[in-house]
Amino acid sequence: MSLLVTGSFGIDTVETPFGKRDDVIGGSAVYFSYAASFFTHVRLIGAVGEDCPRDLLKVFDGRDIDTSGLEIRKGSKTFRWHGSYVENMNEAVTVEVDLNVLAERAPKIPEQFLDSKYVFLANTHPALQQQMLASMKDPRLVIADTMNLWISTERHELVKLLGKIHGLVLNDGEARLLTEKKNLIEAAKDVLKLGPKFVVIKKGEHGSMLVSDRDVFVLPAFPAEKVVDPTGAGDSFAGGMMGYLATQGSFNPATIKRAMAFGTVVASHTIADFSLGGLQAINREAIDDRWHAFKQAMSF
Amino acid sequence: MSLLVTGSFGIDTVETPFGKRDDVIGGSAVYFSYAASFFTHVRLIGAVGEDCPRDLLKVFDGRDIDTSGLEIRKGSKTFRWHGSYVENMNEAVTVEVDLNVLAERAPKIPEQFLDSKYVFLANTHPALQQQMLASMKDPRLVIADTMNLWISTERHELVKLLGKIHGLVLNDGEARLLTEKKNLIEAAKDVLKLGPKFVVIKKGEHGSMLVSDRDVFVLPAFPAEKVVDPTGAGDSFAGGMMGYLATQGSFNPATIKRAMAFGTVVASHTIADFSLGGLQAINREAIDDRWHAFKQAMSF
Repeated sequence: MSLLVTGSFGIDTVETPFGKRDDVIGGSAVYFSYAASFFTHVRLIGAVGEDCPRDLLKVFDGRDIDTSGLEIRKGSKTFRWHGSYVENMNEAVTVEVDLNVLAERAPKIPEQFLDSKYVFLANTHPALQQQMLASMKDPRLVIADTMNLWISTERHELVKLLGKIHGLVLNDGEARLLTEKKNLIEAAKDVLKLGPKFVVIKKGEHGSMLVSDRDVFVLPAFPAEKVVDPTGAGDSFAGGMMGYLATQGSFNPATIKRAMAFGTVVASHTIADFSLGGLQAINREAIDDRWHAFKQAMSF
Repeated sequence: MSLLVTGSFGIDTVETPFGKRDDVIGGSAVYFSYAASFFTHVRLIGAVGEDCPRDLLKVFDGRDIDTSGLEIRKGSKTFRWHGSYVENMNEAVTVEVDLNVLAERAPKIPEQFLDSKYVFLANTHPALQQQMLASMKDPRLVIADTMNLWISTERHELVKLLGKIHGLVLNDGEARLLTEKKNLIEAAKDVLKLGPKFVVIKKGEHGSMLVSDRDVFVLPAFPAEKVVDPTGAGDSFAGGMMGYLATQGSFNPATIKRAMAFGTVVASHTIADFSLGGLQAINREAIDDRWHAFKQAMSF
């Protein structure tokens, strides 16, 4: 089933204890779509500026990703992010950020994408997320991501969005900020009251947690000895998770658990190299092998 | 099989967002032994001062714990700790600590305890840990705990201890301090080079990790909505884990995994109330029920 994703395309500069990479491809939609494309056909929506080197976009060559929703906007500049994990591999310090095209109008959704059944609204202004969602004809599963900025500055629009989606993905700090609850289960349950059927809380190196009306499920991260660059881990997790869900046609708790494990495994490959290098080095078979190893390791 | 534990007995004053308790029983050996006694017979070694209210020691009444190794030392004072979790439920701030009897000579191990097959050396000076271990006749499984203080000030003695034990239990910060490795798997593998066959790293609300030559196993904490007082969670985890191991007679990786899950479940009860209240409210059946629920919830 087709999975539509909207989110950011970026030109990143990243520093970690393992080195520095200048002007590599990044952005939530890039990591998400690459990760999801191991599982299903992906329809990509986003915008870059005319400064974006065409070479960077070659990462999509040969992938099961329809890039016809990727707008190269004249007179605009591509989103740029410069982050450093040198001091702390679990949290990036933003050295510099230029929103550029991200601060402009939302990209247009091509007509032929409007029938998508699975929709992932990556992190952007919650009013834009609602606007994009409103144009979709009959989505079966809508999951959104958000971030601190919108929780702090656009709570009203965010709450409206939460009333319209099935699942919310966010990190632990964001869940606490949104609900003012320190305990993550309490926080997630407060989010459920705002509309979503389930909440997935990403805890970085500490894994993830699923909370629904009926379930609390916790999953550790895949134990990775080689962490070179954590950029994109959360988006890869979401992409792997939702890519798998789109192949299943259902989203009961057991399916979501398996999907989270796929997301976990995909993210464990992302962090093994800079930018998309970790994902470019693997195929679906490598994901399945690690998924089975993870499942085996987690059973007791 | 008999499980010997040496460690601290304390009179605690604890503050958390849920209130304050003055002069309640605490200490590593107290939590450990109570937790382990759900599974097996426990032999307890420790010392309190003559100031220790006899009422506090009544917690052992009716438990399968031999307290004949508990010395009430004349002229000495009981170890006291005053901690606060008001600002951060994941890390206590020590308001005041008086080592008292803990700073004196080690308690004597009764002759009839020297044949114990399972030995847990709770956190104390590594030279004392070695001394107690040396007096044991033929232990089959020896696990030790340690802390920042000894890693920083008695590294030489600690390294000697590590050459003599089967397993080390320590928390994430301690593992990083001991090995100067940030990645916990790398840190644990460095510890293995010093002697232990396996290392269990406790990560508080983020669960625990087992690393041996052959295995890396990660286990999240039981998702607890009600965390009233985290004091003793780590010692209860170790007690539940080793109590179960003592009933199995083997310690292959699969057995240790199951044991860690029992430790996780016992600790989840500890933190639901102040002091030993959480453990006093349950029985073995409640532990088994939650263990099965946890096992079920963790499978995907």
